[in-house]
Amino acid sequence: MDKNNSSENQEQEEQVVNPWEVSAKGKIDYDKLIEKFGCQRLDQSIIDRVARLTGRPPHVFLRRAVFFAHRDFNEILDAYERGEKFYLYTGRGPSSEALHLGHLVPFMFTKYLQDAFKVPLVIQLTDDEKCMWKNLTVEESQRLARENAKDIIACGFDASKTFIFSDFDYVGGSFYKNMVKIAKCVTYNKVVGIFGFTGEDHIGKVSFPPVQAAPSFPSSFPHLFTGMDNLRCLIPCAIDQDPYFRMTRDVAPRLGYHKPALIESLFFPALQGETGKMSASDPNSAIYVTDSGKDIKNKINKYAFSGGQDSVENHRKYGANLEVDIPIKYLGFFLEDDAELEYIRTEYGAGRMLTGEVKKRLTEILTEMVERHRRARAAVTDEMVDAFMAVRPLPNMFR
Amino acid sequence: MDKNNSSENQEQEEQVVNPWEVSAKGKIDYDKLIEKFGCQRLDQSIIDRVARLTGRPPHVFLRRAVFFAHRDFNEILDAYERGEKFYLYTGRGPSSEALHLGHLVPFMFTKYLQDAFKVPLVIQLTDDEKCMWKNLTVEESQRLARENAKDIIACGFDASKTFIFSDFDYVGGSFYKNMVKIAKCVTYNKVVGIFGFTGEDHIGKVSFPPVQAAPSFPSSFPHLFTGMDNLRCLIPCAIDQDPYFRMTRDVAPRLGYHKPALIESLFFPALQGETGKMSASDPNSAIYVTDSGKDIKNKINKYAFSGGQDSVENHRKYGANLEVDIPIKYLGFFLEDDAELEYIRTEYGAGRMLTGEVKKRLTEILTEMVERHRRARAAVTDEMVDAFMAVRPLPNMFR
Repeated sequence: MDKNNSSENQEQEEQVVNPWEVSAKGKIDYDKLIEKFGCQRLDQSIIDRVARLTGRPPHVFLRRAVFFAHRDFNEILDAYERGEKFYLYTGRGPSSEALHLGHLVPFMFTKYLQDAFKVPLVIQLTDDEKCMWKNLTVEESQRLARENAKDIIACGFDASKTFIFSDFDYVGGSFYKNMVKIAKCVTYNKVVGIFGFTGEDHIGKVSFPPVQAAPSFPSSFPHLFTGMDNLRCLIPCAIDQDPYFRMTRDVAPRLGYHKPALIESLFFPALQGETGKMSASDPNSAIYVTDSGKDIKNKINKYAFSGGQDSVENHRKYGANLEVDIPIKYLGFFLEDDAELEYIRTEYGAGRMLTGEVKKRLTEILTEMVERHRRARAAVTDEMVDAFMAVRPLPNMFR
Repeated sequence: MDKNNSSENQEQEEQVVNPWEVSAKGKIDYDKLIEKFGCQRLDQSIIDRVARLTGRPPHVFLRRAVFFAHRDFNEILDAYERGEKFYLYTGRGPSSEALHLGHLVPFMFTKYLQDAFKVPLVIQLTDDEKCMWKNLTVEESQRLARENAKDIIACGFDASKTFIFSDFDYVGGSFYKNMVKIAKCVTYNKVVGIFGFTGEDHIGKVSFPPVQAAPSFPSSFPHLFTGMDNLRCLIPCAIDQDPYFRMTRDVAPRLGYHKPALIESLFFPALQGETGKMSASDPNSAIYVTDSGKDIKNKINKYAFSGGQDSVENHRKYGANLEVDIPIKYLGFFLEDDAELEYIRTEYGAGRMLTGEVKKRLTEILTEMVERHRRARAAVTDEMVDAFMAVRPLPNMFR
């Protein structure tokens, strides 16, 4: 027993998941992550309930357990069932010019939630964070935030229900007051425990968690939620953001707010295999929304890790290992037709379908998706960005 | 030697001076403080130079070495002599309803500097700091900031050259960008070294130093100083604020700004004796601008520590100990007539004047001063507060 425990501990330490690092020796062990973080698995009964309450089939990311964990999502649904509203909060750290497919996942899902529940949405662009962590200038961080806003808007959000803001633009007033109130409730030792800061880290890092926490509270947005201090907040995000909101949930009752609820996704795997998030610094580890059809085809053919066997003969005999096959993983995210996916899994797993065929189908799907995104993004004007980012009331946000 | 050194170290440790604590076993040793902080003594040649450059007699606080230390004040004067301008920055942490006489000292001196050099002035009310350190609510901190602004305005500042702001109102935009830029340059270990924070302190404390640093840089005030990034800043303050600006001066060159210059005062002693700053929590340790003439008389007679002897006979024989006598100290701050002060010192020190007579003269002076302040404060309307605190250009600020 002792030996087992100790080897388990070691294994656990080899898996690092925090907002700035996601790495594991092998595959991420999401069960361990759920246990370590203390969130809950999103079970079928909740998915069924979402379908019933919204009168829509559950999103593919729910059916396929891409969003697989949560905190108090059931309470959001309880409240919704009683006729109470809530708001959505998600965000992005604008550290790169172009988004990759993994970046789109939370936004695609958030758009579905906004449409299905008919609720307002705030999207935080943490240009201040990226300025501090990536050592970008303020100006460059702000430029990237605006560029990223265009990609986010291209996901199809409803301008009458959506407020996008950059921290450099928006921090101040009620938002800053909440930052101060939150900071008062969190000791330095606590953030060291949660985020692993060291004494050599600059104090900008220590100051940042309240900035990401503040949008969880409706009073940070007086132009939207004045008089609605009891409004609940639901945060769709990748599970690496959980530490921020564990902190936020600790603080919330002390400030008289509801704890924000979370619905948390897996990481979108790199082309090279499922050992963490994709790396923005290696362009060949990911497919970008700016990649051409040719780029996509090349990247999939050349880099997408295959679970197929090393010869056609062996492949026919043993079939593909679907557990490690990246094309299958990607199809799991983006091929919406459950029957077709099941067919491919069966045929490929049995060796009757070859890697090349699966990659070809994936290339078609991603090319179409990226092409659609590119067209949508090209239609996003500067005036539209200004409109989404204007500090304004949203009179129809709950309709 | 070793023994001496060790006892010196011990003595030094018994003297604690930082923005939140000023205490010493006996009197504050300002020479040691200058040495420890690394600032310079303000010598007669600088005072003469101020008189020459401004064409005015030096302020009583310069003549009496109330403002006794500085950092780069000579560079401000060099620049001024070349025809370059600068701006003044001072502040207050609004933790109490009413100001005491010690609080007025930096404002009286700052008003003199503004008048003498004809320069703009920004006054920061750190309501966020007091909310965090004193555990006040946001609303109470903001209310106190506004009340304190009235006392500050009553000191006679020129609205066409003065911008007063509360952090809760003003943090954001260019000011927040400077906060982030500053925070990026300062490690946690560094603030621990400067301010003595511990792991049990909340992260609001760790986040605050950049808030107090930001007004040292002209770009924090785009409505005033756009296009003047080279404008120098002079900060009149009590020497306990030096740690903030040591940090700021370290950071300034890395951000391409001038280091702010400082001119630093002694602490105004408590009625009970010169061992630190007055305590806002003990109303009998200080004279407040809200005290009546009767209060003032009572406090001086009852609490002002006397250097006189214990019997008239001994007093006539030995004279008063002026080094510890609080009425003499207070007269040093507020009796402007050098000749009269010298006369009182001589007569009292020789035992020819009694404590009661000195206290009577001090009571007259303070009563008149407080009465004048009360009249000035009563004339400060809410509209005037709004005007001083409006984010607005000051087109005549250098005239």
